[in-house]
Amino acid sequence: MSLLLDIQFEELPPDKSVDTKTFLDNVSKLPLFFDCLGSKVFTVIKSDINGNITKIKAVYHKDPAKYVTLQDILEAEREAYEAEWPKVGATLALMWLKRGLRFIQVLLQSLADGERDENNPNLIRVNITKAYEQALKRYHGWVVQKVFSAALLAAPYRSNFLKSLSKGEEVKEEDCLANVRHFLVNYTMVIDAIYEMYTNLNAELNYTV
Amino acid sequence: MSLLLDIQFEELPPDKSVDTKTFLDNVSKLPLFFDCLGSKVFTVIKSDINGNITKIKAVYHKDPAKYVTLQDILEAEREAYEAEWPKVGATLALMWLKRGLRFIQVLLQSLADGERDENNPNLIRVNITKAYEQALKRYHGWVVQKVFSAALLAAPYRSNFLKSLSKGEEVKEEDCLANVRHFLVNYTMVIDAIYEMYTNLNAELNYTV
Ligand SMILES: CCCCCCCCCCCCC/C=C/[C@@H](O)[C@H](CO[C@@H]1O[C@H](COS(=O)(=O)O)[C@H](O)[C@H](OS(=O)(=O)O)[C@H]1O)NC(=O)CCCCCCCCCCC
Ligand SMILES: CCCCCCCCCCCCC/C=C/[C@@H](O)[C@H](CO[C@@H]1O[C@H](COS(=O)(=O)O)[C@H](O)[C@H](OS(=O)(=O)O)[C@H]1O)NC(=O)CCCCCCCCCCC
Repeated sequence: MSLLLDIQFEELPPDKSVDTKTFLDNVSKLPLFFDCLGSKVFTVIKSDINGNITKIKAVYHKDPAKYVTLQDILEAEREAYEAEWPKVGATLALMWLKRGLRFIQVLLQSLADGERDENNPNLIRVNITKAYEQALKRYHGWVVQKVFSAALLAAPYRSNFLKSLSKGEEVKEEDCLANVRHFLVNYTMVIDAIYEMYTNLNAELNYTV
Repeated sequence: MSLLLDIQFEELPPDKSVDTKTFLDNVSKLPLFFDCLGSKVFTVIKSDINGNITKIKAVYHKDPAKYVTLQDILEAEREAYEAEWPKVGATLALMWLKRGLRFIQVLLQSLADGERDENNPNLIRVNITKAYEQALKRYHGWVVQKVFSAALLAAPYRSNFLKSLSKGEEVKEEDCLANVRHFLVNYTMVIDAIYEMYTNLNAELNYTV
């Protein structure tokens, strides 16, 4: 079974609200994605993302009936934290989490689209770099950017990465990419909706770490 | 008050056994050390070390009377885990933790000894690099070594680092270094004893991450 087929993001309703419980159930399986990269180096990223998810879950479980959608959480925190908001609580955790999710999305999309370095067709550095530039680079200071460049050297071969996305099964590359494309449909929609919500609520921040 | 003065490692008894409770109380304050480095980049290291401490604490609290000394833990785990040991449990956590502790020790010792790059007297890169080479480098593959080189660029100035060790107080550099020297006496003895214990019990591993 493919890792991605275990994760079923649902189609969004017309108002594009994201159901908190479904979202949390689904993203909880995503950190496994970073194991597919193969190197221990990426454990660090996995913990960071797990930390975000834990933080949002903690808020949700305090009052599931109040926090049915992600927007409910942001609005409640905006009221509770006043001037501190949005650099606080689950709002901050989701702000960062969505960037990690976007990173994964752009990387998978780029692979699904067949983008590759013709001189090194079995490397995925071009795909990872594209995802990094679109999702994260602007939020990273120059030291973290340098750390990224170093970590990039630990990226797996394309074939190994696709194999581990399929949980080690010997599926054909085309079948694996078909799974990826299927996964991306609702996944992308959910991420887009979260980004839109941050823009609409004026909750997005641009500081670097 | 200096960060280091809050942490009072005790002199060891003649058999050099390390009291688990005292050790855990003391090292729990040490991750703050990584905040003194100033950059968010080091949060990652802080979490890694905090993870080690949490793991050892969890074992200790299961049966404080049984695990009076650190050696009690290692011996109990050696029996419980058989072939898996020592790459397991609190034995593994302490194996890595001691390397982080050694890193801190060598760095502080090098500063206390006045070692510096004469061309850049306000940088501590030479001291950090020395500590890294003695404590950690051999356990890191080439990618993590590259990440280290990148992270080194985020190291603080010597003056700022000493100031934050003194919790921001305007103490004279010489007073701060006197505190460091005082701290290092028992601290070094405890770390040496832990290393010796790993050698004696044949619990040390040399794999890289
Ligand atoms: C021995 C050698 C050691 C050297 C040390 C090297 C250290 C390297 C550091 C590398 C950085 C690793 C990636 C982590 C980056 C994080 O700093 C950022 C910002 O994280 C957020 O910061 C926030 C700080 O907020 S502030 O208080 O407002 O400042 C929060 O803490 C927030 O958590 S929260 O849930 O509590 O809200 C937290 O996620 N995280 C990211 O950039 C996300 C990374 C996602 C995945 C990246 C995928 C890259 C894959 C690369 C492949 C080559
Ligand atoms: C967006 C850009 C993102 C790019 C991603 C960059 C990622 C960078 C990664 C940098 C690495 C950060 C430092 C952490 C290194 C750890 O991997 C190692 C090994 O850690 C151990 O691994 C073990 C794995 O064991 S195994 O199963 O047997 O393989 C255990 O998990 C163990 O935990 S335990 O308590 O559960 O037992 C754990 O500590 N830790 C260290 O090297 C310690 C670092 C100490 C401090 C270093 C100070 C350096 C300061 C640098 C200043 C410039």
